[in-house]
Amino acid sequence: MVEKHVDVAVIGGGIIGLGIAWEAIRRGHSVALVDPDPATGATQAAAGMIAPASELHYREEHLLELTVDSACRYPEFLSSLAWTGIDPGYRKTGTLVLAIDGADRTALADLRDVQTHHSLSVEQVSLREARRSEPMIGPAATAAFSAPDDHQVDPRKLAAALLAALGERGRLVRARASGLEYDGRRVTGAILEDGSFLPARHTVVANGLAAAQLAGLPCRLPLRPIYGDILRLRVPAALQPLLSHTVRGLVRGTAVYLVPRADGTVVLGATMREDGNSGVSAGGVYQLLRDARQLVPAVAELELEEALCRARPGTPDNAPLLGVVPGADGLIIATGFFRHGVLLTPVAAALCVDLLEGKPCPPGLERYRPDRFEEGQA
Amino acid sequence: MVEKHVDVAVIGGGIIGLGIAWEAIRRGHSVALVDPDPATGATQAAAGMIAPASELHYREEHLLELTVDSACRYPEFLSSLAWTGIDPGYRKTGTLVLAIDGADRTALADLRDVQTHHSLSVEQVSLREARRSEPMIGPAATAAFSAPDDHQVDPRKLAAALLAALGERGRLVRARASGLEYDGRRVTGAILEDGSFLPARHTVVANGLAAAQLAGLPCRLPLRPIYGDILRLRVPAALQPLLSHTVRGLVRGTAVYLVPRADGTVVLGATMREDGNSGVSAGGVYQLLRDARQLVPAVAELELEEALCRARPGTPDNAPLLGVVPGADGLIIATGFFRHGVLLTPVAAALCVDLLEGKPCPPGLERYRPDRFEEGQA
Repeated sequence: MVEKHVDVAVIGGGIIGLGIAWEAIRRGHSVALVDPDPATGATQAAAGMIAPASELHYREEHLLELTVDSACRYPEFLSSLAWTGIDPGYRKTGTLVLAIDGADRTALADLRDVQTHHSLSVEQVSLREARRSEPMIGPAATAAFSAPDDHQVDPRKLAAALLAALGERGRLVRARASGLEYDGRRVTGAILEDGSFLPARHTVVANGLAAAQLAGLPCRLPLRPIYGDILRLRVPAALQPLLSHTVRGLVRGTAVYLVPRADGTVVLGATMREDGNSGVSAGGVYQLLRDARQLVPAVAELELEEALCRARPGTPDNAPLLGVVPGADGLIIATGFFRHGVLLTPVAAALCVDLLEGKPCPPGLERYRPDRFEEGQA
Repeated sequence: MVEKHVDVAVIGGGIIGLGIAWEAIRRGHSVALVDPDPATGATQAAAGMIAPASELHYREEHLLELTVDSACRYPEFLSSLAWTGIDPGYRKTGTLVLAIDGADRTALADLRDVQTHHSLSVEQVSLREARRSEPMIGPAATAAFSAPDDHQVDPRKLAAALLAALGERGRLVRARASGLEYDGRRVTGAILEDGSFLPARHTVVANGLAAAQLAGLPCRLPLRPIYGDILRLRVPAALQPLLSHTVRGLVRGTAVYLVPRADGTVVLGATMREDGNSGVSAGGVYQLLRDARQLVPAVAELELEEALCRARPGTPDNAPLLGVVPGADGLIIATGFFRHGVLLTPVAAALCVDLLEGKPCPPGLERYRPDRFEEGQA
């Protein structure tokens, strides 16, 4: 069977694929997105922090070009979806980052210097000031940093809005893609698991970890699962609102965060495991609760509503595989977003559609070329 | 509407109600059991320890008469259900009880003296011996006691067998009972929520906490919910079997247990909360994982498959409300079993059917009369 021809076929309905599909749609392209079960992978677990400052890691400073750009694009990107009537839970209340012991304080102060050097807005605030804005901060906190520009979105709601937009103005094909079809060196669309063919002028591979298994890839995609356990906790009425800011912390060297949602829940995350276990880790849950209690002791009073584990698509250098690949015209790769899928959605969507429209892309994008790990590449 | 008349109407399809129904059926009575959703309350969460020794608490020594009797009845009770083909997961591998700090050691040694005084088989064993039978015991354990006669059953499977037996040889009425019907001072059956009437020669109130809300009770039933959080953890193949015995512990004063199941899971429980919160407590989950890791550190390597909270029906003296009530002929009350519902099922079933058959009951049963908390009773 041959599906209707479209301008753009997007393989993968996580937040990245959905974002690319919507960006292409709103620029006037006809779009079909292929996914058997959209928004049920890492997107379902993601905390949704739009936090270029707090998410900065050493040796990944180059990502700031993308993360800061993407955070700036968020308001416009979300407003383009307002017509769906689905509130994506965008909150601009900022982030507080807490330290527990001396090493945590030093690490966060050092990081603050790097953040400031990169023009990110992060400043140390007194604990009194921190507690004035978040009275539930516990006595174990010994230092606080404020990152007022680190915001949040609710990824499940954003995905719902993107799916609604796709349903209205594009097409969702509920199937699994098995490979790419070629005409010479040009990719002509996606082959689906049932053997049918989705012809498209441009094909975007955005199905996260599963991308590596597609037949006909022009290069190896060195993706590996980095599992994350995440909890959703319900705040009892008497404790509402537990928090108004996102509260992160370094708790004796381990990072943990609490993201308050408008629906009265708090998202507590996230572990990073490469142990190959795709189920929720008992040790991971223990660690999350232990450390979150150090930041906000009242976490113990919350109700455990959901414990979830999802795999993030990791790459050898923790940077995405994003761009075109020589020898495969009409193909764009957009995967390997690791911890940054939600944050990078608007910029990844814009860049991918720029690429397929033949628009010039920033030279920095070269760094993320999907074939950079091939033999002979540097 | 009037349902068909039966010898025995049992209100409540938890493990106690199901056990009574089966006991009545196998003694030749016609039985209908009323429950909108049987075996989904405390029965679903229960660990299923058949453990008169380890479950002994100070000031509750009188319960031993029932618990020891019930444990002895278990093999025969279960064999009466063998024809259902459902294996109830009865395991006779015994229980190990571990101490962590000095106070735990003292408390368990003192308890062992009381247990021995009551002819219960509990003896201290060397840690070497304990580790020989359970190599996953962690380095924090400082003393071990063996209770070889403390066994276990899988309450979900036992309930499934009892439900199968009821379906085959009795009748399940999927409805909620709202009250009792009287003819003078004789209870003539159960009134259901839709107004219909289930006439019965004998009516047994065995619906746990909900019993207190029945209309027409001859006395107040002072039941209160005592919430318990319980976890089901899956043991990865590489760690199978994690444990062969039930491993309990006193961890710096807090009791915790790990019950291995034949299906490769471990049940980790249980908190006791009277905070009115019916959801899984984040603090409870933290406490369970923290303490279980002290006993068996590899708990951190397990997968959290299920986190559950259920309410146990507690009474002012932690003893059941079990027996007849003057002024309400044809009525038997069997609720308030608190932590001991599964353990006490065979004996409670036997006593209830003895009562309705007019057989003599042990004088000790007087202690559990359901109206003992009424004004004027002592």
